[in-house]
Amino acid sequence: MESLLSVRAKTMKASEIRELLKLTQRKDIISFAGGLPNPQLFPKEQMAEIAKDVIMDQGDHSLQYGTTEGYSKFREAIAERLQKNFGMDVNSHNVQITSGSQQGLDLLTKVFVNRGDPIIVGNPTYLGAANVFAAAGVKFETVQVDGEGMNPDDLEEKLRVMTHHGENPKFMYLVPTFDNPTGVTMPTNRRKKILDIAHEYDMLVVEDDPYSELRYEGDPVKSIKSMDKEGRVIYFGTISKIMTPGLRLAWTVASEPIIEKFTYAKQNSDLCTSALNQRIAFEFMDRGYLEPHIQKIIDMYKRKRTLFLKGMDEHFPEEVKYTRPDGGLFSWAICPPEVDTTEMFKYAIRAKVAYVTGKPFHVDGSGNNTLRLNFSMPSDEQIESGLETLGQVLRDALAHSIKDTEEGDFMMAP
Amino acid sequence: MESLLSVRAKTMKASEIRELLKLTQRKDIISFAGGLPNPQLFPKEQMAEIAKDVIMDQGDHSLQYGTTEGYSKFREAIAERLQKNFGMDVNSHNVQITSGSQQGLDLLTKVFVNRGDPIIVGNPTYLGAANVFAAAGVKFETVQVDGEGMNPDDLEEKLRVMTHHGENPKFMYLVPTFDNPTGVTMPTNRRKKILDIAHEYDMLVVEDDPYSELRYEGDPVKSIKSMDKEGRVIYFGTISKIMTPGLRLAWTVASEPIIEKFTYAKQNSDLCTSALNQRIAFEFMDRGYLEPHIQKIIDMYKRKRTLFLKGMDEHFPEEVKYTRPDGGLFSWAICPPEVDTTEMFKYAIRAKVAYVTGKPFHVDGSGNNTLRLNFSMPSDEQIESGLETLGQVLRDALAHSIKDTEEGDFMMAP
Repeated sequence: MESLLSVRAKTMKASEIRELLKLTQRKDIISFAGGLPNPQLFPKEQMAEIAKDVIMDQGDHSLQYGTTEGYSKFREAIAERLQKNFGMDVNSHNVQITSGSQQGLDLLTKVFVNRGDPIIVGNPTYLGAANVFAAAGVKFETVQVDGEGMNPDDLEEKLRVMTHHGENPKFMYLVPTFDNPTGVTMPTNRRKKILDIAHEYDMLVVEDDPYSELRYEGDPVKSIKSMDKEGRVIYFGTISKIMTPGLRLAWTVASEPIIEKFTYAKQNSDLCTSALNQRIAFEFMDRGYLEPHIQKIIDMYKRKRTLFLKGMDEHFPEEVKYTRPDGGLFSWAICPPEVDTTEMFKYAIRAKVAYVTGKPFHVDGSGNNTLRLNFSMPSDEQIESGLETLGQVLRDALAHSIKDTEEGDFMMAP
Repeated sequence: MESLLSVRAKTMKASEIRELLKLTQRKDIISFAGGLPNPQLFPKEQMAEIAKDVIMDQGDHSLQYGTTEGYSKFREAIAERLQKNFGMDVNSHNVQITSGSQQGLDLLTKVFVNRGDPIIVGNPTYLGAANVFAAAGVKFETVQVDGEGMNPDDLEEKLRVMTHHGENPKFMYLVPTFDNPTGVTMPTNRRKKILDIAHEYDMLVVEDDPYSELRYEGDPVKSIKSMDKEGRVIYFGTISKIMTPGLRLAWTVASEPIIEKFTYAKQNSDLCTSALNQRIAFEFMDRGYLEPHIQKIIDMYKRKRTLFLKGMDEHFPEEVKYTRPDGGLFSWAICPPEVDTTEMFKYAIRAKVAYVTGKPFHVDGSGNNTLRLNFSMPSDEQIESGLETLGQVLRDALAHSIKDTEEGDFMMAP
């Protein structure tokens, strides 16, 4: 079998995070790993009622194959919402429904990437995107990320060098609002600058936006797509964080010629997205359930975020720096360079607290002193006690410089 | 944008069938095109009841992200059914749940195909497979198909020539039971021969099997996978034709190392298949609804197939040959070479009957005198009157040799 594998398959391996996450699922462990929405918020009664109606009243269509582009009413409702709430000049023909945003990323690589093509990502960047880009055989160039997201000066510098060497990146990928993994948001002026640079170097901007509606503080920032006059931005949105992930529904928003290519690529990928799930999601919006539901999510996550920031402020050693996100699901911590968070993970698990190591989010292999922390999933009590424990783990790591220490010598907090 | 497209995207175009199917959706047309299950059979009451239960009682999981491999109980139920009803020596670790069999085909190309790799298909072959293989950049070799499926003598001859030229095909793809498009079934001795040849040339066999449970006549034939002692066969099954397509659920069955690669590829493609839909399908099986439901489908389609054969026998000119399928959804007709079924399609539409032209199922560009006919979707009355009309269209085509005739000169049946 080995000799028959594709180049892509030969380089595939289990995601590091995936293996770590298995550990964190133990019941006795307080997990700040993962990035799951809190199931306490799932609108079960409303969904059950809708699912029943959609099957009984529209079963001939909801249980049948659907069109590759997506259910027309759902596409229209999404387009209308993007116009109204996001200031985007789009209609339903600019919207392709996908089986989660991950499929949008896969279709992106199918439509634009030949093996060896250069693309640009932040350092760090979203792991799920980095993995599908790597599998497609891209050549990564990374740009520095600071408290306001991708640094445009570094971006320009990298592009200058690349084009000097005859390399023209196809696109840059970013999560500009409540970034995964860093939690930071790019301000408007920087978004404009990024779009100008993309224009100058004639490349696409891929704006992945699963979190922007989960804002707990500050004023909304306009999406890059809403500033796009050239059809240069490909935008990904999803119901996973504002409704439920189990329906596997997302949308790609782009110019019609690009949507057409995405549709051909999707036809080969899975023919169509579940008609049943699309009709459930449409009804959820059409019955007016979505906006109040988002408010419920914001109320809960805002409280958790406040608790989380308070806990980090109280318990984390001052050498450890962390972001203070205005929304989304994550904070991001940076330890002094001598701390190895991959090594520290074992000790954290022994102390019954988990996080996600930051290294896999860095395609250049750096970031071994970083970690991602999720605050949407743990209970309020878990946030309080888990951060106390993690603070102790971090202090011990700083004191003992874990990577030079034998496992047995390491004094663990209880 | 054009200059940024991948090689794959530059060659993408709307499937010919897809464009034709749009025409056939007109209400005044009797359509033997398409390949949809009949929605009259969709088990709405049972599905509605189950959907409600699965959301209310298991919502924390059914509405959440799931594992990439698929819902464990569903995988176990599928494996058990494959053991019991299909004689396969497999367990749940040999089963990967996908978003329809089309996704299985896409993952297959990701795991095994580099651009330029040779593979083998029948001539004709299933269009959805041919399209995803073409998009992945395969080099096709075709093997003759007769009334018993792929011809093993021609297969061996082609392989001899290929290997002589240093070309080692990665796999052969086939639908051995109630083939799409031909409706024919490969007998057991030929299946064994095919598997022996695959062993000799050390290639994989991809067995696509969406229809085998819809048998209306004759004895079941063992799947190629059930004869596989080497892990050489990759098998695709689906609920689309035996439950409902709208849930978008299928399974890939293969050796554990192959399933592991498929799982990595799926993680990049869409993270996971809808947990809600998997739990609905599992409950449908677990509550004992599936087997009686399949019997209901068989009862209806068997009647339609009998009517269809009777109609073709009565109305088709004797120069037109067609298959007499023992199951599945399709019959396949071959006209004398002078008939151009693509050109004839216009006349058929004007006479208010539709079929699918056979040419797109031939990756070598031949087959322009063939057509595929679906009997699961039309009503009994539509079968009777539609075949009378189509018989007239065929007779006119034979008489006038349509391709040399001006559109206006062609005398159409009313």
